[in-house]
Amino acid sequence: MNVIDVILTKRDGGRLTDEQIDWFIGSYTDGGIADEQASALLMAILFRGMEPAELARWTQQMIASGTRADLSGLGKPTVDKHSTGGVGDKLSLILCPLAAACGAAVPQTAGRGLGHTGGTLDKMETIPGWRSTLSPEEVLPVLRDVGAVINAAGPDLAPADRKLYALRDITGTVESIPLIASSIMSKKIAEGTGALVLDVKVGSGAFMKDLDQARELAKVMVGLGEAHDVRTVALLTQMDVPLGRTAGNALEVVEAVEVLAGGGPPDVVELTLALAREMLDLVGIDADPAAVLADGRAMDSWRAMVRAQGGDPDAVLPTAHEVEVVTAPATGTLSRLDAMAVGVAAWRLGAGRARKEDAVSPTAGVGWRATVGDHVTAGDPLLELHLDDPARLKDALEALEGAVEVSPDPVNPSPLVHARVTPQDL
Amino acid sequence: MNVIDVILTKRDGGRLTDEQIDWFIGSYTDGGIADEQASALLMAILFRGMEPAELARWTQQMIASGTRADLSGLGKPTVDKHSTGGVGDKLSLILCPLAAACGAAVPQTAGRGLGHTGGTLDKMETIPGWRSTLSPEEVLPVLRDVGAVINAAGPDLAPADRKLYALRDITGTVESIPLIASSIMSKKIAEGTGALVLDVKVGSGAFMKDLDQARELAKVMVGLGEAHDVRTVALLTQMDVPLGRTAGNALEVVEAVEVLAGGGPPDVVELTLALAREMLDLVGIDADPAAVLADGRAMDSWRAMVRAQGGDPDAVLPTAHEVEVVTAPATGTLSRLDAMAVGVAAWRLGAGRARKEDAVSPTAGVGWRATVGDHVTAGDPLLELHLDDPARLKDALEALEGAVEVSPDPVNPSPLVHARVTPQDL
Repeated sequence: MNVIDVILTKRDGGRLTDEQIDWFIGSYTDGGIADEQASALLMAILFRGMEPAELARWTQQMIASGTRADLSGLGKPTVDKHSTGGVGDKLSLILCPLAAACGAAVPQTAGRGLGHTGGTLDKMETIPGWRSTLSPEEVLPVLRDVGAVINAAGPDLAPADRKLYALRDITGTVESIPLIASSIMSKKIAEGTGALVLDVKVGSGAFMKDLDQARELAKVMVGLGEAHDVRTVALLTQMDVPLGRTAGNALEVVEAVEVLAGGGPPDVVELTLALAREMLDLVGIDADPAAVLADGRAMDSWRAMVRAQGGDPDAVLPTAHEVEVVTAPATGTLSRLDAMAVGVAAWRLGAGRARKEDAVSPTAGVGWRATVGDHVTAGDPLLELHLDDPARLKDALEALEGAVEVSPDPVNPSPLVHARVTPQDL
Repeated sequence: MNVIDVILTKRDGGRLTDEQIDWFIGSYTDGGIADEQASALLMAILFRGMEPAELARWTQQMIASGTRADLSGLGKPTVDKHSTGGVGDKLSLILCPLAAACGAAVPQTAGRGLGHTGGTLDKMETIPGWRSTLSPEEVLPVLRDVGAVINAAGPDLAPADRKLYALRDITGTVESIPLIASSIMSKKIAEGTGALVLDVKVGSGAFMKDLDQARELAKVMVGLGEAHDVRTVALLTQMDVPLGRTAGNALEVVEAVEVLAGGGPPDVVELTLALAREMLDLVGIDADPAAVLADGRAMDSWRAMVRAQGGDPDAVLPTAHEVEVVTAPATGTLSRLDAMAVGVAAWRLGAGRARKEDAVSPTAGVGWRATVGDHVTAGDPLLELHLDDPARLKDALEALEGAVEVSPDPVNPSPLVHARVTPQDL
């Protein structure tokens, strides 16, 4: 097998053979193929795409580069949720214990934030004592007893993806639907979940800016789930406006706990319930997640989940030294609150990272007292910028220029869920 | 400047800015940019192409990575010829001394064979004592006194190309018109020639298989010559049938010397004269190359040129231990003699190399007693396979399967020159 032949096959628009895929993924993971040859292939894939069966094989080999967890002995159905990344998206923190309280087991492998998008691990790590590094042996009893874990990817979870992702990150080959889909799905399938709900974000603050692209990504991922016997459904959800009222690590934990306590912003509650219903549907659990949220059972699961990973659910979370307030520019209805601008502002305040090696601030972030469709009054506080380092304020304010608009007329916020993609839609 | 931004600019179909090009070529040559990032950019260029001004800047920076020779003090006009590579193409060996004998100076930087195509240096090196490694200081007096050199690229001749070509070779990014054109033209412009005739081969034995592609490459190269004040003309010439009657290193030197002595195969003579007239036209020399060939002045130049580089023009060249004869399969007109098949056979007999580090045999190769349009008689010798290693015969014969066809009807060989591309055609 010759790597140049593999590159030329894809470059010239052909389908990689199963043998080529098996050899490439195996050899690249083992260090037998040079990075400059792998990056040329990735760029060719970005231009040429991959056929469904070809991508399924590619993903299968990424999974097989490590171990696919076997959770069949748990005695509970397993289901997970994955979001493609947005601003203010703290839904995993609520969904994992909520689904667990309904009787499912959620073996969530979560990631860290990059750029303007937050990461579940960064948020959870603001809880004193909490750790994301459970071994496969430690995961099983927690899933059995508590019903949910939120864990970092271990060394044996799709190691091919770790290497390929690091290469894509520095070679301009991130934005390829087959490469995105195989990266996400290889990890989700390898973690051992039996069913999966995908939250594919669409809009200014999302990776996918338009609905067609997002639908395409959703279809490819749903197809990959099917190809690996993981029942998969995707919701395409709006990310022009950030979710809830906060973007920032500890700020979002506080908001998630408000929802678990039966309160919290209506949009977060609505989308959480929509995703929870999909998760429960997929595994045939007939429960009402709204009731489980209202009666405190989800909160009990949250507390047990945090404790099982070493965290103190009663700890007071850290807060920023300084909160700068930005007031509403006019009286009327908030007609625009740009998710990307809010995400970049939170990042610049310290909540995010430019490179995966960077540390993030637990306390920095942005809060907003109103969202699109709400009434605001000129001069009243609208945005809160939480920061520890005053030098960061200027850049954050710059990011927010043009991010807020107020209309004299009523404004209907766009629906939270744009569309649903199921295996029947493929 | 960020290399990922440079990659994304090209990947998304944009034009690289002058600053991006200057920085990329400089930093990559100096080792400041990783190979995996450079190969991703090269693949993006392969898919997206480059605008003329963008490619001119790219080529300029490749030249500026080393030194552009200044031959203005020679007192003679300088002109060179470059072929994109074919089978049986020994024309440089004749053209360099022929143009010199007509009063021009030819500062040829030549290359080695790769795959099925031969290389001028490999051929010249079959002459005992001849060396291709003249320093820039050694080149000048030879050009002044003899009028022609055939030299290998020195370390200061477009070093960016050396690095980029090695990377393209292992990353499936060779077949890109802007990358091919900039690689060829950066070296030709840097060698210091004032004018250039390009022999762009088209057909089975050429890099470019169809005329449109070849014309596109020719136009891009002529444009690059113009952009760097090198008057450039291209001929598109046929390479479905190999040139002359031999393909192999010493075999081709012998054939070139036959032409210099006033004989040789008619196709070689005809194409040599066509290219020579273009060379002389470009530098305004009013001489008849046919007469200069006929009266022995070109041969005198050849002998002086060989001697100036340490070679003995009277040496007997090495010959192969063994010559296997393949006879004509029928009586009639030879209607097919496939250039690629002959080139691959010569390569397998030992005349060529698969990797640039490989050694080549001086003696191995293929001869043919008739070419397309000639009468052949069933059972008479048609092909001669020259070899030192009998184990290589089988593979060579396999390469020749289907390469020869004989027709009962007369066959007109296709013209040697298909088209001409000048700066007026851009």
